[in-house]
Amino acid sequence: MSTPPNGQLIGVGTGPGDPELLTVKAVKALERADVVAYFAKQGRGGNGKAIVGEFLRTDVKLLPLYYPVTTEIDKDAPEYLSQITAFYDASAEMVAAHLREGKTVAVLSEGDPLFYGSYMHLHVRLADRFPTEVIPGVTAMSGCWSLAGLPMVQGDDVLSVLPGTMAEAELTRRLVDTQAAVIMKVGRNLPKIRRALDAAGRLEEAIYVERGTMANSALTPLASRDDTEAPYFSLVLVPGWENRP
Amino acid sequence: MSTPPNGQLIGVGTGPGDPELLTVKAVKALERADVVAYFAKQGRGGNGKAIVGEFLRTDVKLLPLYYPVTTEIDKDAPEYLSQITAFYDASAEMVAAHLREGKTVAVLSEGDPLFYGSYMHLHVRLADRFPTEVIPGVTAMSGCWSLAGLPMVQGDDVLSVLPGTMAEAELTRRLVDTQAAVIMKVGRNLPKIRRALDAAGRLEEAIYVERGTMANSALTPLASRDDTEAPYFSLVLVPGWENRP
Repeated sequence: MSTPPNGQLIGVGTGPGDPELLTVKAVKALERADVVAYFAKQGRGGNGKAIVGEFLRTDVKLLPLYYPVTTEIDKDAPEYLSQITAFYDASAEMVAAHLREGKTVAVLSEGDPLFYGSYMHLHVRLADRFPTEVIPGVTAMSGCWSLAGLPMVQGDDVLSVLPGTMAEAELTRRLVDTQAAVIMKVGRNLPKIRRALDAAGRLEEAIYVERGTMANSALTPLASRDDTEAPYFSLVLVPGWENRP
Repeated sequence: MSTPPNGQLIGVGTGPGDPELLTVKAVKALERADVVAYFAKQGRGGNGKAIVGEFLRTDVKLLPLYYPVTTEIDKDAPEYLSQITAFYDASAEMVAAHLREGKTVAVLSEGDPLFYGSYMHLHVRLADRFPTEVIPGVTAMSGCWSLAGLPMVQGDDVLSVLPGTMAEAELTRRLVDTQAAVIMKVGRNLPKIRRALDAAGRLEEAIYVERGTMANSALTPLASRDDTEAPYFSLVLVPGWENRP
């Protein structure tokens, strides 16, 4: 009995939340995929799947990949690392089983797949074994600064993308050393981010954006936002382009 | 005689070059636009227009905005600044004339409009006077790292977007101080960029990408690329994500 050739792995960037921000290429990939895989929390539908819902074929096979742990365990604990590594290994093998049957498997990735995307964990385990295509997407940060109508970087500006988890002194130092910045992982780090921006003399320019291009998005100068915990899908934008011709 | 309400200004991100990397939203904006404006060099068709060609209505009015100067004059010379400022002012007024007639004007912007895009010069002159929407696009850097299949940033990685025009010592310092980097404006700066990467101990990881997602794209480890001048549409990518679970 002959075996079919391997199917294709496609990392599909879904963009920041608005279904119309999928690319034409992403829509076509979803139309031809036999299997659509996506990461989600246990008991949730997954943000990526919610974004692409209208583009899914009714006969497509859905392959949800449920995280075994999310915020219950410290991310630096050895127990977290071993559990999450085993999960990515097992997820990759579930996807590989479909690829070996000759199926095309699209893996959803919010924003852009290779820019902080969960898809990367499958990519590094499978791309050397199966034909692979990565379809780039609009990042959450692009969605946010477009919503805000905020000119971010121009000419010879430096842009720094910084995690809000960074120590305060380190964050301050980097904010002083850049024309523009995007601060990710705001959440409970909001008070610290505000102090670092203030120390760097950049607080007045900073814009806080919540849930980017989703239906319930909100944006406000960070200086006028209170210090209650921000949702996971929030960013702080510090624009560059000081000298405009 | 009553005057029509003002039309809408739309900054349309065309993505990095492949027409299928336009978003669904961008395609719809081009379908409804009365006027499509784009920046181009004198005597050229414009890269943005080439990307969206298949999506333009046959009856759409095209408004090319030809740069008066490009590389003939030093960018820091007062003569350059006065000429280019006058050009952006005049371009904004040409677009404004259509908006005052109630026309919807889409302005093409390669990549993402507010990320180093020429559209920004019109946005800052018009967005406070006319209803404005910015449609984000896939950036050239996302197009490049997706083509390369290169996992760029994950977790708490810092990403630095750096102009290749920067002084060598400054570039080296910043490359030492980041997990991942994208170096833009490679062109004639290639030998300097190579030396800075080498000094920072990052040369072996660096990937050189030429013309991103265009039909004639090419990618190679920077270490094996010669020092002849690179084309304008080229980038150097230095991936982060050292500790992979």
